[in-house]
Amino acid sequence: MLAEAGARGLTHRAVDTEAGVPIGTASNYFRSRDALLGALGERIMERFAPDEAIVAKLAGRTPSRELFVDYLRYILERTTAQPDLTRALIELRLEAARRPGLAEILGATLRQGYRDDVAFHLTTGLPGGAVEIALLHYAMDGLLLDLLTTSIDADLTPDEALTAFVDRLVR
Amino acid sequence: MLAEAGARGLTHRAVDTEAGVPIGTASNYFRSRDALLGALGERIMERFAPDEAIVAKLAGRTPSRELFVDYLRYILERTTAQPDLTRALIELRLEAARRPGLAEILGATLRQGYRDDVAFHLTTGLPGGAVEIALLHYAMDGLLLDLLTTSIDADLTPDEALTAFVDRLVR
Repeated sequence: MLAEAGARGLTHRAVDTEAGVPIGTASNYFRSRDALLGALGERIMERFAPDEAIVAKLAGRTPSRELFVDYLRYILERTTAQPDLTRALIELRLEAARRPGLAEILGATLRQGYRDDVAFHLTTGLPGGAVEIALLHYAMDGLLLDLLTTSIDADLTPDEALTAFVDRLVR
Repeated sequence: MLAEAGARGLTHRAVDTEAGVPIGTASNYFRSRDALLGALGERIMERFAPDEAIVAKLAGRTPSRELFVDYLRYILERTTAQPDLTRALIELRLEAARRPGLAEILGATLRQGYRDDVAFHLTTGLPGGAVEIALLHYAMDGLLLDLLTTSIDADLTPDEALTAFVDRLVR
């Protein structure tokens, strides 16, 4: 619904209708629109969670530049395979710029995601720390914005871009 | 209006009302909503144009790493000084993912902007070419998304981030 109609269209009533449940159900679970939109942000992050079997396979490999690139490839794969979800998260972030209550909930979710990424990275044996994860996070967000909305059509593939991010941003 | 109400709220009629002109004026100039939203994208890019005096001053300096950083600082300054405009452009990009007609117009505008950036960069005597400009473009877009919407609150300042982008992404 977020991808189709934007955050403005996502009301309690519209959710009830889409889910085929009695009017009043969504507002029973989520008292305010901030709570409804904030819960959606959490749900989107859950749906982006990696497959544990794939992570275990990656984690079993010897740390290398190629392994780092493969972790990023797996992020790009998950986010571009669900373009509506990725765009919905950007939509929520824009809406949070207008709604302080949503900014609080969504901010907590995104900061937790970043801290989890940093903590996970420490377990991989790969180079780089919190600063590199932040730089990669910005770079990948910008790349996704390009891929999933209007693109500048630069003369490099997404895979070339993310490989360059690992090669150049990580020291 | 885009920043306040999102792309869905930006109709011909709403523009007429906001501008205090007779109903029908906006649709006289822009026949479709795609044309209206597309023209807005062009206008936003125009409003982000640099001050010629500042560019002349930067262009007069000897090429150096510090000059490259200062060019990026000037981009960050312009885009964050007008946060609503920057967010409106992201809003338009999301809307273009739903409207092929808008994607065509906005795509042409953004691609022209990228080509202009690459052509300008060649005149500066600074290192890097089209690939580096694309990588910096993605990285800066992601940084702006973080700064102007919900942030991950990483432990580095925007200036530290953009300096790292120049130091690491440009070879």
